[in-house]
Amino acid sequence: MPTINPERLLETLQTLRTFGATESGVVRPSFSAVDMAARHWLREQMTAAGLEASIDGVGNVIGRSLQRGKALLVGSHSDTQPRGGWLDGALGVAYGIEIVRAFAEDAVIRHFAVDAVAWVDEESTYLGCLGSRSFCGALTHEAVAAATNAEGQRLTDALAAAGLVGIPPVRLERERYIGYLEGHIEQGPYLEAEGNKLGVVTSIVGIRGCKILFRGQQNHAGTTPMPNRKDAGVALIDFASKLRHAFQAIAGPKTVWTIGRVTFHPGAPSIIPGEAEMILQYRDPEVERLEHFEQMVHDLAATANRAGPVTVTVTPNRAPIKPTVMDTALQRQIAAAAEHHAPGAWVYMPSAAGHDPMILSDHLPCAMLFIPSIGGISHDFAEDSHAADIVLGCQVLADAAAAILQQA
Amino acid sequence: MPTINPERLLETLQTLRTFGATESGVVRPSFSAVDMAARHWLREQMTAAGLEASIDGVGNVIGRSLQRGKALLVGSHSDTQPRGGWLDGALGVAYGIEIVRAFAEDAVIRHFAVDAVAWVDEESTYLGCLGSRSFCGALTHEAVAAATNAEGQRLTDALAAAGLVGIPPVRLERERYIGYLEGHIEQGPYLEAEGNKLGVVTSIVGIRGCKILFRGQQNHAGTTPMPNRKDAGVALIDFASKLRHAFQAIAGPKTVWTIGRVTFHPGAPSIIPGEAEMILQYRDPEVERLEHFEQMVHDLAATANRAGPVTVTVTPNRAPIKPTVMDTALQRQIAAAAEHHAPGAWVYMPSAAGHDPMILSDHLPCAMLFIPSIGGISHDFAEDSHAADIVLGCQVLADAAAAILQQA
Repeated sequence: MPTINPERLLETLQTLRTFGATESGVVRPSFSAVDMAARHWLREQMTAAGLEASIDGVGNVIGRSLQRGKALLVGSHSDTQPRGGWLDGALGVAYGIEIVRAFAEDAVIRHFAVDAVAWVDEESTYLGCLGSRSFCGALTHEAVAAATNAEGQRLTDALAAAGLVGIPPVRLERERYIGYLEGHIEQGPYLEAEGNKLGVVTSIVGIRGCKILFRGQQNHAGTTPMPNRKDAGVALIDFASKLRHAFQAIAGPKTVWTIGRVTFHPGAPSIIPGEAEMILQYRDPEVERLEHFEQMVHDLAATANRAGPVTVTVTPNRAPIKPTVMDTALQRQIAAAAEHHAPGAWVYMPSAAGHDPMILSDHLPCAMLFIPSIGGISHDFAEDSHAADIVLGCQVLADAAAAILQQA
Repeated sequence: MPTINPERLLETLQTLRTFGATESGVVRPSFSAVDMAARHWLREQMTAAGLEASIDGVGNVIGRSLQRGKALLVGSHSDTQPRGGWLDGALGVAYGIEIVRAFAEDAVIRHFAVDAVAWVDEESTYLGCLGSRSFCGALTHEAVAAATNAEGQRLTDALAAAGLVGIPPVRLERERYIGYLEGHIEQGPYLEAEGNKLGVVTSIVGIRGCKILFRGQQNHAGTTPMPNRKDAGVALIDFASKLRHAFQAIAGPKTVWTIGRVTFHPGAPSIIPGEAEMILQYRDPEVERLEHFEQMVHDLAATANRAGPVTVTVTPNRAPIKPTVMDTALQRQIAAAAEHHAPGAWVYMPSAAGHDPMILSDHLPCAMLFIPSIGGISHDFAEDSHAADIVLGCQVLADAAAAILQQA
C-alpha cells in the first residue's frame, strides 16, 4: 500500500494557495493571470512526479503516467470562485499529484498507472465544468463561442489571452481508464456535525434553476396611490415569500433552495419598480422532487398571473443537471479504505455541490471522497479544513486507488 | 385680465421637448449637453419675452422683469428624470414664459412685474432642488463638493463641464417678490379619476427614506443545509413582507411607501447572499404619521435582530423632508381663477411629489396649480396630459398672477 507524505502534501497545497492568495482566501478565477501561472506550476509538479504533463487547449493540466496497463485518473479543478476558499478544487488536485508521488516511491505498486489532472473552470467563470466537458467531447463550438464571464468578456478572448490558441484539447481515451477519483472538501456541515472524518459520495444532487421576471408599471413613488400601483418589486417579494412556504412544505432532508440574486429596475428610491427579477436555484438528490419543485414554481406564477396586476414569467437560466450516481464498485473500494483508516468515522453521503463527475460519469466510472469543512463554510474566504483531515483523506484515496488498480 | 396664446404655449413646450427627446419621453438630466442647450434656448425665449435673462452659476435660468414694483416669480425646473416625461417641470417653465408674454401683450397689466425661472436639478441627478437651494442661500459648499450622480461623477466637474465656473449664483431678493407660483402636472391619478381639471395645492407631503442593510453569512448554495443558513436575502424578503403588512395597518388615505431598490450580495445564483440591502421611502402629509412609520421600521428591525440569525441595520438615506404648507392667500387667488374657468371642476389637494417650493416656501410665499396627468403616469416616457388641460392651467395661473399683483 502507498504511504503519502503529509508535509509534502500540505506544502503543495500551501504553494498552490499563493497563486491568487487574498486575505485568508484565494481569488483565482479561470484564465486569470494567477490561474494560468498556477497551471504552469502544476504542470511542473506533475513532471517532477514522473508524469508526461501538459496544459491542453482549454487549460486542463493533465499528467500521463508512463506505466503500462489500465490507468486511474485522479484530480479536481484548480480554478476558484470570485472570492473562493483555498481548498475547493485545490485539495483534489494536490491529492492527485501526491498519490502519483507516493506510488512512485513504493516498489510494490510503482508499476500502476495513475494520471493526475487539474480541470479548468469547474466554477463556471465562463462555462461550468469546461475542462471535463472538453475532455469528454461534450463541448460544442457554439457553447464556447457564446460563453462570457460576468463582466461580458468572451471565453474565446480569455483562451487567446491565456496563450492557448492552437493547442489541441486532450480527449478521453476510454480504453485507457478504469475510472476517475476525486477528493474534495465537503463544503457542508454534515461530516463535522456528526463527528465523521470521511464521506464516500453516493451521488451528486440534481440542480435546476430559473429566472423569474416580474413586469409591472414604472411610476412615480410619491404620486401613485397604493391601490393604483403595479409594483414589480412588491410582486417579487410576495412571490418569494409564498415560494418559501411552498418549498418548505415538500422539502426533503437534503433539499436546498436559494434566491441568489434580486434586482429591481430602475432601482431608484423615488420610482416604483417597473420590473424586478430573481434567480432561483434548487437542488435535490431525487429527480421526482426536482420535478415537484419546478411544477410548484410554475403553479405560483400562474396564480400570480391570474391575480395580477404584475405579470410573472419563469424561464430556465441554466441547463438542468440530473442527479448523478457514483460508481458502486469504486465507492466500495473507497469505503473499505475509509473503514481501515477511520473505523466507524465515515459515511456514505450525497454531494450537495456540483463537481466535474457530473460530466465525467457519463463516460467513465467515477467516485468521490469528502473530508470535513470547518463550520461547513465554503465558497468564501473563511473556508478551511483541519490538516489532519486533509492528510487522512489523501491516504484513504491513495489506498483506494491502489486497491482499485490491483483488482483491475 | 391676461389672455394666454394656446398655440404659442404648446409650441414652446414642443420645442423644449426636442432637447433630449427619446421615444415619447425626454432624457435631459441636469448639466447634460441637452440640458444646457435647453437652458440657453430658454434664456433666449425669456429675452424675447422682454425679460433680462441669464443663466446663473448653478444653471438656473432666471428672467427679470424690467417693470417696477413688487414682482411675482413664476416657473418650475427644466431638468428631467433619467427616463422622464416631457411635461414634468417643462410645463411650469413654459407657463412662466407664456404668462410673461401674455402680460406684455395686455395694455392694462403690462406694468406688472413677472419674473420667469427654470430651476436646475429638482430631480436630484446630483443634488435635489439644487437650483432653488442656491437661490435661497440654503446650499453649503460642503454639499456641493460632496454631490455626485449615480455614476459617481462629481457635481463640481459637471458645473465646470457646463461652463458655469466663475458665474455668480442669483440670490433671492426678498423685498422684490410677493411670492412664487408654479404650475405642474399632478403626476398622480386623482384629478383624472374624479373628473377634475385643476388642483390647488394645499401642501407638499413629507418624505423620509432609509437604507436597510441585512448582514448574514455568505455560503455555498448547494452544501449549506437550510437550517444552518444565515441568508441575508431571505431575511430581507421576510422583513419587506412584514413591513408591508405593518404599514398597511396604519396608512392614511394619502400615505405611500416604496421599496425602490433591492440588491443581494454577491448576487450569484450558487451563493447564499451574505448581504442584502433595500431602500425604503415613505411619504405622508402628516408629520405624526411619518414618525409612526419610522418607529415601525425600527421596531421591525429590533424584532428581527432579536430573532436572528441575520442582523439588520437601519440608516437614513436622505435628509427627511417635512410636509410643506402652501400660502393660503395665494391658494385662494388660484382657487378663484380655477372656479372662474372650470366651475366645480377643481379641488384643493396635497402634492404627493416633492417640488422646489419645499425649499422656497421657507423664504417666500408659494403656491402651486396642478393639471391632470393621463392615467396618473409620471417619471416615465408615457407621461402625458391633454392639450386642453395644459392650456386651461396656464390661463388659470395667468389670471391668478394678475389678481395677486393687482392686490399687492
